[in-house]
Amino acid sequence: MTENNFTLIPPQQMQERFATILLKLGFTEERATACAAIFTANSVDGIYTHGVNRFPRFVQYVKDGCVLPHAVPTLKSKFGGLEQWDGNLGPGPLNAVYATDTVMQLAQQYGIGCVALANTNHWMRGGTYGWQAAKAGFVFIGFTNTTGIMPAWGAIDAKLGNNPMVIALPYKNEAIVLDMAMSQYSYGAMELSVLRNEKLPVPGGYNTGGELTNDPAEILASKRPLPIGYWKGAGLSLLLDILATILSGGLPVHEIAAKEVEAGLSQVFIAIDISKLGNLSLIAKTVEGIIDDYHQSIAVDASQKITYPGERVLQNRERNLANGIPVLNKVWKEIMEL
Amino acid sequence: MTENNFTLIPPQQMQERFATILLKLGFTEERATACAAIFTANSVDGIYTHGVNRFPRFVQYVKDGCVLPHAVPTLKSKFGGLEQWDGNLGPGPLNAVYATDTVMQLAQQYGIGCVALANTNHWMRGGTYGWQAAKAGFVFIGFTNTTGIMPAWGAIDAKLGNNPMVIALPYKNEAIVLDMAMSQYSYGAMELSVLRNEKLPVPGGYNTGGELTNDPAEILASKRPLPIGYWKGAGLSLLLDILATILSGGLPVHEIAAKEVEAGLSQVFIAIDISKLGNLSLIAKTVEGIIDDYHQSIAVDASQKITYPGERVLQNRERNLANGIPVLNKVWKEIMEL
Repeated sequence: MTENNFTLIPPQQMQERFATILLKLGFTEERATACAAIFTANSVDGIYTHGVNRFPRFVQYVKDGCVLPHAVPTLKSKFGGLEQWDGNLGPGPLNAVYATDTVMQLAQQYGIGCVALANTNHWMRGGTYGWQAAKAGFVFIGFTNTTGIMPAWGAIDAKLGNNPMVIALPYKNEAIVLDMAMSQYSYGAMELSVLRNEKLPVPGGYNTGGELTNDPAEILASKRPLPIGYWKGAGLSLLLDILATILSGGLPVHEIAAKEVEAGLSQVFIAIDISKLGNLSLIAKTVEGIIDDYHQSIAVDASQKITYPGERVLQNRERNLANGIPVLNKVWKEIMEL
Repeated sequence: MTENNFTLIPPQQMQERFATILLKLGFTEERATACAAIFTANSVDGIYTHGVNRFPRFVQYVKDGCVLPHAVPTLKSKFGGLEQWDGNLGPGPLNAVYATDTVMQLAQQYGIGCVALANTNHWMRGGTYGWQAAKAGFVFIGFTNTTGIMPAWGAIDAKLGNNPMVIALPYKNEAIVLDMAMSQYSYGAMELSVLRNEKLPVPGGYNTGGELTNDPAEILASKRPLPIGYWKGAGLSLLLDILATILSGGLPVHEIAAKEVEAGLSQVFIAIDISKLGNLSLIAKTVEGIIDDYHQSIAVDASQKITYPGERVLQNRERNLANGIPVLNKVWKEIMEL
């Protein structure tokens, strides 16, 4: 982004704008505020693709009746620390926050809990729920399925989802949060690289001739993005879809892909209450020891810091809270017209 | 392997040979049989690196006092479905089978269970425990840490473990089992490619000049194997190590790497009792629907079948049970002299 085509928007202003739009769409004040806060926080953290840049599409889904503003999750079945819920096509971020709250309660009661959520909508940034649980003191493992975007290993048609997986734990007063999709690059990231006339840093898929390439335009043409670790990420994507589907009793990738819009997703939330395992300050010391050692890695480029998953998010957060959130002018204009 | 340098060993003969050796090392008859059965089954399934080829090294660890034949896991702490155990440096495969049995009982009682095991030894093939749990009807998620073998993303010194992760579930009368390490290729696989004078199918690491290469000898020289998905697999490796360490109260990768041998590992076993979620035949039908759709993928090479994780294992198993297990003559000679 050049200085000319974006504006720095104060977080408070962004959140108020989002809430106003959601209120007009029929959200209650409480739910409009909660949903606006998540889209704003994702933007503050620098995850614009699942924050401000995605907001207009979320609004369109609400207008189209694919995301139901008032729908809340309902319990389908329960056994000990394992619960199956129906998301009733409510707003994905609100459903996911609810599921995360619920699984933390299960973990407090049973040590470990699992909430599987069928029939929900896109949770935007999976890391949101990792931060939520980790800041509350829990270890968190979560994943979602998506529509089909990537071929199986050795195949050309997109039968696999991007199926992001999140792993998080408390660290100092913040968190370590891994939030990774199963394709090396998202379609959004590749489209951005095309706009910027940039190559991808590492090969991101195949060209139409079946050769690996770091040219994003060629991958967009072939529709063959690369799974992380080739056959390994393809396998992991398949397994996460199967688990999300059978644990929630919801739809698998191939049934979501058959719909006109990406709706009715299946998600899994697992939390572990580490306070049940003993002295929390001892656990914290262990984590600090691992990260201290990790930070002492010898960098290829001595000017580059070796960072843990979530570390750069803190830098984005600090900068955007101080300076405002950089928003593309055309995106903010679109939001002001919603 | 050419026809000249290997022999087909009947599984029964292999298992008896392994058991005889373990009995001489002081294993009880029951534990010698159980341990021999695991090494043999891994070989039958075609995972020779963690079966017959690894057996002499396992024996050496026992002789060196790093693996204690009689040691069994002891419970350290327990809360609901969450248990912390000490492996007491017992044989890794026997400890892991015990942990898997235990976590399945927890899952039956609480819907979901987690057993974290400190101070254990190499579990050989993680898939063993995935098959064990899935064949008993459970969803399984497990992972282990290892010694340091791979640099953090952007670094040159090997601070990260290979930290394999296993996800498994029942499928027909068998299982779908994903068993994946965090490096694109293991050192064992790269050494084998060097011996065969072959290049790796995809880039597996960096040469000493810092460029990606598919020449295994160059990666062995640089000691910079590639994490799956570059920064993503590096992050996942770090997170799995942290989780295994804090949940088990055991050693992290950097403390294991400081030892002379790879011992005292930390492992996590999670099981979910899907029979608590409703009709098992309905769940089975859902999985079959996903796999049927997956199998209909359009292959790049029409002669190649698109397989799910674990599918080729079944083919290996059938072939090796019928024909015998192909064992390198020099490996079998070494085993016959143990």
